[in-house]
Amino acid sequence: MTAQPSPTTVRPAARPRVVIVGSGFGGLFAARALRRADVDVTLIAKTTHHLFQPLLYQVATGILSQGEIAPSTREVLARQQNATVLLGEVTGIDLEARTVTAHALEESFTQPYDHLIVAAGAAQSWFGHDEFAEFAPGMKSIDDALELRGRIFGAFELAEVAAAEGRHADVEALMTFVVVGAGPTGVEMAGQLVELSKRTLAHDFRHITTKDARIILLDAAPAVLGSFHPSLQSKTKASLEKLGVDVRLGAMVTDVDELGITVKSTGRDGDPFEERIPAVTKVWAAGVSASPLAKLLADQVGVEVDRAGRIPVQDDLTLPGHPEVHVVGDMASLHNLPGVAQVAIQGARHSVDEIEKALAGKPTGAKFEYFDKGSMATISRFRAIAQIKSIRLTGFIAWLAWLAVHLVYIIGFKSRLTTLISWFVSFIGRGRSERTITQQQVFGRLALERARREGDQGTSASRS
Amino acid sequence: MTAQPSPTTVRPAARPRVVIVGSGFGGLFAARALRRADVDVTLIAKTTHHLFQPLLYQVATGILSQGEIAPSTREVLARQQNATVLLGEVTGIDLEARTVTAHALEESFTQPYDHLIVAAGAAQSWFGHDEFAEFAPGMKSIDDALELRGRIFGAFELAEVAAAEGRHADVEALMTFVVVGAGPTGVEMAGQLVELSKRTLAHDFRHITTKDARIILLDAAPAVLGSFHPSLQSKTKASLEKLGVDVRLGAMVTDVDELGITVKSTGRDGDPFEERIPAVTKVWAAGVSASPLAKLLADQVGVEVDRAGRIPVQDDLTLPGHPEVHVVGDMASLHNLPGVAQVAIQGARHSVDEIEKALAGKPTGAKFEYFDKGSMATISRFRAIAQIKSIRLTGFIAWLAWLAVHLVYIIGFKSRLTTLISWFVSFIGRGRSERTITQQQVFGRLALERARREGDQGTSASRS
Repeated sequence: MTAQPSPTTVRPAARPRVVIVGSGFGGLFAARALRRADVDVTLIAKTTHHLFQPLLYQVATGILSQGEIAPSTREVLARQQNATVLLGEVTGIDLEARTVTAHALEESFTQPYDHLIVAAGAAQSWFGHDEFAEFAPGMKSIDDALELRGRIFGAFELAEVAAAEGRHADVEALMTFVVVGAGPTGVEMAGQLVELSKRTLAHDFRHITTKDARIILLDAAPAVLGSFHPSLQSKTKASLEKLGVDVRLGAMVTDVDELGITVKSTGRDGDPFEERIPAVTKVWAAGVSASPLAKLLADQVGVEVDRAGRIPVQDDLTLPGHPEVHVVGDMASLHNLPGVAQVAIQGARHSVDEIEKALAGKPTGAKFEYFDKGSMATISRFRAIAQIKSIRLTGFIAWLAWLAVHLVYIIGFKSRLTTLISWFVSFIGRGRSERTITQQQVFGRLALERARREGDQGTSASRS
Repeated sequence: MTAQPSPTTVRPAARPRVVIVGSGFGGLFAARALRRADVDVTLIAKTTHHLFQPLLYQVATGILSQGEIAPSTREVLARQQNATVLLGEVTGIDLEARTVTAHALEESFTQPYDHLIVAAGAAQSWFGHDEFAEFAPGMKSIDDALELRGRIFGAFELAEVAAAEGRHADVEALMTFVVVGAGPTGVEMAGQLVELSKRTLAHDFRHITTKDARIILLDAAPAVLGSFHPSLQSKTKASLEKLGVDVRLGAMVTDVDELGITVKSTGRDGDPFEERIPAVTKVWAAGVSASPLAKLLADQVGVEVDRAGRIPVQDDLTLPGHPEVHVVGDMASLHNLPGVAQVAIQGARHSVDEIEKALAGKPTGAKFEYFDKGSMATISRFRAIAQIKSIRLTGFIAWLAWLAVHLVYIIGFKSRLTTLISWFVSFIGRGRSERTITQQQVFGRLALERARREGDQGTSASRS
């Protein structure tokens, strides 16, 4: 009689499972870095796309389509046989059981792991005033960018009608745009709003003169672009003012309502004063707060998250007592590293190096060394700033560098090609090829919110 | 003492005012046709864009971005000095007072006219079952196309998770797609769904085999493409079936629910039977009904709208008793002309000719002569059908002709260029560059509807 080997002896050992939470720079670069590893990679994210955040403001202002900056994550990883992509919002991580739980609509699923990389990023923060969000939306997702696009272009549309009807107070509020937060995102938005009003839309209206639009950039800090060298800060402020942006520093937002924003500043006499600015369209680019998963993890390992909700990680990016868990990107706090793409990308690669060492039985725990490749911010057409160590660039050359670097990081040849074309159209020509806004964005969204507030059960479909 | 001429004698005569309602083919082509006329043109539309409807299905299936097929109306007319574009939903037309009333959010405005061209088009119709719309959305607007895109790509995402969790019944319902209505739109959608499942997404998933998706095309009529020659009808049906589409004719939809659709057909024995097909994603491309403005006008002139809600117009496209009002396109009924782009475009040009004659004091009332330039419909990559008089084309040559004709009608050089690139990517390559769907579309929309139904006052923002 031939002895049959029992199934347990012949089953091949299951491969180690690496679970990645998030499809931003940290999550996607981690997955790609594992492409030759003998592991099963499962990437769980709450959107279906990898978002190239630095160019979100170009979707919001009509230059690019969402497809150009948000490729499908599973399409990017389609040829990577060891990678599975699952859509789900991670709501639970159990460090003891080594499982991740996620929800997709009403269903939930649980994914066990041997190694975990958490790269869930950060969302917009209104500093405890979430009620500001309805009227001063943030810009951290495609949803946000499309919503803002609708509000920006919609504001000019409504101003045209208001001007035709002689409703001048409405025209002023509709043609005043306020950007809160003078970091790179705020500066870029303010610059693009100027371009829109002074160049792109200059011939499109008959009753309003779009060049008369007021663009206000606010920040509680005493300078714009807090993370840049003071000389670049002052050059940027000067550029913005030359473009016509009203830059108000030391200005703190105390209230936001549907038709305006209230700001507290210090007058020339040193006394504080509060002012309400009538402005329908407001963009909040002022604060970020880490994914709630940071707190969820912090509670389990007994540490405190910082003011931005980020979880402190060890020098090697792992959680205390859990060398199998790495946290990278905007949700992690280490040596005050900034929440920029390079930190997430390099953190992801470091984590993967560590995982590969662990799998090979080599010693782990190497410190994460961040290599600062510099920072850039664009102001407007032909104007940007860049700094790498002590090298500082401004103007046209910095702008070309900015374009080149961002073009390289866009995923997909087709997207790179059409992005180049869109930039040509927008920056050399006057066009904005992605201005399309949906009815829901102009008519429906505010009506929807209002209806929900008033308890009206009608659907927005009835308006179509 | 010099006699001062009184202001009334020196004020130049105000130019005649032409108001156009609608920014589709009829409205936009009418505005453009008036570019040299000595009139003031005001175009009022409820969207900010001119929608190229024939390519909507390509936005819904991820080939094109909305910007490529929906340029900003005011951008198209920016250089036409006599044209003003106003955003507003027209809710009233007073034929006696010769005014048009429109709403933009909560404000309304009234526009007087000397000549009026009403080209407000048609919306989707569910034949009296508007409740079907929530689960079988139509495809007549950018909102619709983006919603459908979210549902289509989202269905595969949810199927992947369901398959990973062993929820096979869910997988089947999620991987079954039903298109109701076998006109050109339905046929094109069915063809693209096959392409998506068999080509584009074939490598993107690990737990589901997208090639196993079921695509069902239903119509109560006994043939597909009712307006085409029978030989083309049977060739199309054969092509679709060869691609794997389940074409069911003589099938009437009796109910639609969130997870399925109920269909009544006749069995082989001649007896009717009803069947519920589990299918989460359903597209309604089956009926249109004219803008409510048709009824509003019909009531004022004492005529009846037809079954599709269209208002019968005189031979010269005017309303009885109102030679200053022309109605063109999908909302008008004359000699059973079909609701296609060429009818709207030629109707618009005829109306403008008539208006120019009236302004020059020449006799008006010339009959509208429709010149049938033929019809085309695409089935899938490399396959289409076309007919012009007795000339009939099928296959690759018809497909090239289809591409060429549609490319010519796309407005804007940049959009034409990027559309060509997108077609190259999608039809020669396997890519879909515009697959990005928003969280609101996947997670939020159904949850939002459900919440509203259940009276839950939470906002969708809390899910982000």
